[in-house]
Amino acid sequence: MKDPLFWQDGKLHILDQTRLPLQEEYIVTDDLEDVAQAIERLSVRGAPNIGLTALFGAYIGIAASDEIEADFERAFKRLARTRPTAYDLFAALKRAQKVFDSGMTPDEKRANVLKEAHSLKEELIDRSRLIGKYGADLVPRDAIILTHCNTGALAAPGDGTAFSVIAEAHRQGKVKIVYADETRPLLQGARLTMWELMQRDIPCRVNVDSAAGILMSLGKIDFIVTGADRIAANGDSANKIGTYTLAVLAKRHDLPFYIAAPTNTVDMETRTGSEIEIENRESSEVTSFWQQRTTPSNAVAENYAFDVTPAELITGIITEKGVISPEAIGDQIK
Amino acid sequence: MKDPLFWQDGKLHILDQTRLPLQEEYIVTDDLEDVAQAIERLSVRGAPNIGLTALFGAYIGIAASDEIEADFERAFKRLARTRPTAYDLFAALKRAQKVFDSGMTPDEKRANVLKEAHSLKEELIDRSRLIGKYGADLVPRDAIILTHCNTGALAAPGDGTAFSVIAEAHRQGKVKIVYADETRPLLQGARLTMWELMQRDIPCRVNVDSAAGILMSLGKIDFIVTGADRIAANGDSANKIGTYTLAVLAKRHDLPFYIAAPTNTVDMETRTGSEIEIENRESSEVTSFWQQRTTPSNAVAENYAFDVTPAELITGIITEKGVISPEAIGDQIK
Repeated sequence: MKDPLFWQDGKLHILDQTRLPLQEEYIVTDDLEDVAQAIERLSVRGAPNIGLTALFGAYIGIAASDEIEADFERAFKRLARTRPTAYDLFAALKRAQKVFDSGMTPDEKRANVLKEAHSLKEELIDRSRLIGKYGADLVPRDAIILTHCNTGALAAPGDGTAFSVIAEAHRQGKVKIVYADETRPLLQGARLTMWELMQRDIPCRVNVDSAAGILMSLGKIDFIVTGADRIAANGDSANKIGTYTLAVLAKRHDLPFYIAAPTNTVDMETRTGSEIEIENRESSEVTSFWQQRTTPSNAVAENYAFDVTPAELITGIITEKGVISPEAIGDQIK
Repeated sequence: MKDPLFWQDGKLHILDQTRLPLQEEYIVTDDLEDVAQAIERLSVRGAPNIGLTALFGAYIGIAASDEIEADFERAFKRLARTRPTAYDLFAALKRAQKVFDSGMTPDEKRANVLKEAHSLKEELIDRSRLIGKYGADLVPRDAIILTHCNTGALAAPGDGTAFSVIAEAHRQGKVKIVYADETRPLLQGARLTMWELMQRDIPCRVNVDSAAGILMSLGKIDFIVTGADRIAANGDSANKIGTYTLAVLAKRHDLPFYIAAPTNTVDMETRTGSEIEIENRESSEVTSFWQQRTTPSNAVAENYAFDVTPAELITGIITEKGVISPEAIGDQIK
C-alpha cells in the first residue's frame, strides 16, 4: 500500500487525489504555496491528512527562512485560509504555534516544528491502529461489510478510521467482501475507497448509493461502518450525505451500524445533531459530472453535503479509546 | 410540452432520449429498421412508449408492402427482438397480430393496424389522465413532492404514470416544489424528469439519491410517488433501484409513499416480491460515467437495476381504476 502522505529528503510527498484512481502521481514539494494549493484543490483531503499537510507546510514556510517569526506568521495565515472551517487544520497549526510561543532559538524552533509534524503523523497512525483493533473485534467471521465515502489512508494516516476497521478485520481473515457505496456526488467511494481496497487486495465491489437497501434486503450485508465529520455530545453524528439513510436501512434489517471516528470528532459544544448546520454546496456538483452537464441547462440542485444520524440508530462509536455507546459518548469524552 | 412520440405526415416522430436533456432532436422515420434501432438504442424508453413505438413500427413494416403477410411477420419478429422481455411490447404487437388474424383485405389490414396504434395512444393518454386525477386528490396543498427515476411523457403517452400525479397536482395549484432523485446509475431523474418538470414550468430541484433521507428529516418532503415495473399479486412492487430505500425512509418519517402504475403492471403470476428476479446489469454502468472511468480499472460493480418494495411500506397504488391498497391489489385486478 502506497503511503499517500509522507516526508522524505526534505520534501513533502502528497499523492494527488484529484488524479485517482486512474493516475497515481505525487506532488513532491518544498514550496509553501504548492502545499496550500494542494489543500485547496483537494489533492489532499480528510481532516487528519489536511492537518498533517498543513503542519508540514508550516515547517516548509520556515525551513530556509532568515526571518523565522514573520515567515511563520505568513505560513500560518496562508495555510489557515485554505480550509477555514477545518478543525484539525487549526489544531495542527496550533502545535507549531506552541513551538513559536516557547523561548527556543530559531534553529530549535525549525527543528521542533518538523518534529511536531512527525509526531503528529505517528500519533495519527497509532490512533488509526487502535480504531482498527477495537473495530475488528466487532466484525463477524466471513463478514460482508458495507461502507460509505472514503475513510482510509487517503483521509487519515495509517489505515484511516472506518477503513482501518475493514483493513484490520481483513488482516484477521474475517472479511468476505466489502461493498463500497460510490458516494455521489463526488464519488469518493468509487474513486478512492475502491482504489484503497484494491491496493490491499481486499475483495470488493462498488454499488450505487441507492442499492444499499436491496443489498441488505437480499441478506448480503452483515456489518456497516462509516466515519463521522462531527459527533454531538448526545451521540448524533454528522457525516457524508447518505450515511443517515444507511443507518435507517440498517435498523430495519436489524444490522449493526457503527461509526468509527477519533474522540476529537466529538464536539461537546454541539449538544445535539439538530444544532449542526448542514452545508448546502454548489449545484454544479450534482447538475454536471466532470464538466459534462447531465441536467437541463437551468436546472438547480439541492446539494446537502452531510446528514445527521441520530444516536438511537448507531450501534456504537468505534474510537481510539474503545467502542463507546453513542448515548455515553459525551460523558466518556468530557 | 413537446409530445415525445407522435405520428404525422406518414412518419413516426420519436424524441431521441439519448440526446436529452441538452439536445431536443426527433428521429423522423418511415423505416422499420430505424424504429427497431430506436428501441434498441433506448432513444425511446418506458414500457408503454416502447409498445406504442413497436405498434407504429409494425404499421411501417407493411405500409408500402406488396406481400403484406410476409412483411408483417418480418416486422413482428424484428420488433419483438428489440427488447425480448418487454411485456407491453408484445401486448402492443399482438393488437396488430389480431388484425392479421381477421378476414380483412390487405388494405383494410394496413388501415386497421395504423388505427390500432392511434387507439393505443388514446387509451394510454386516457389511462395517464385517470392516474393523474386519482393521484392528485391525494396530494396536499403546497406539497413538496419527491419522485424517483422517470415516469412522465418520456415513459408513457400523456403525462405518464407517477409524473401524471405531479403534473395534475401542479395544474390544480397544489405543488410547491418537486425534488427529483437523480437516479443513478443512468440518471433518468437528472436527465429526463428534470427536463419534463422544466418543460412544464414546475418548480423543481434535483438531488443525489442518497439525499432523500436528509430532505425528509429536515421536513422538506410531504408526498412521495414513484412508478413500478412489476407489482406482485400481494402488492409487493418492483421498481428502479432506490425505490425501496425511499419507502423505508418514508415509513420512518411517517410520510405517504405511493406507487402510481396502470393495473396491467400487476402480475398475478407473481405471488410475492420474493419471486421477482432482480436484474443485475453490467458493471460498466456504475464503474464508468459516460465513457469516463470513475473507478480503478479492474473494479467490479454490483449493479442491481431494480429493488422490491414490500406492500406494507406502500401507502397506496394509484391506478387508472382508482387508488387501491397494496394488500387488495390482487383481488381488485382478478
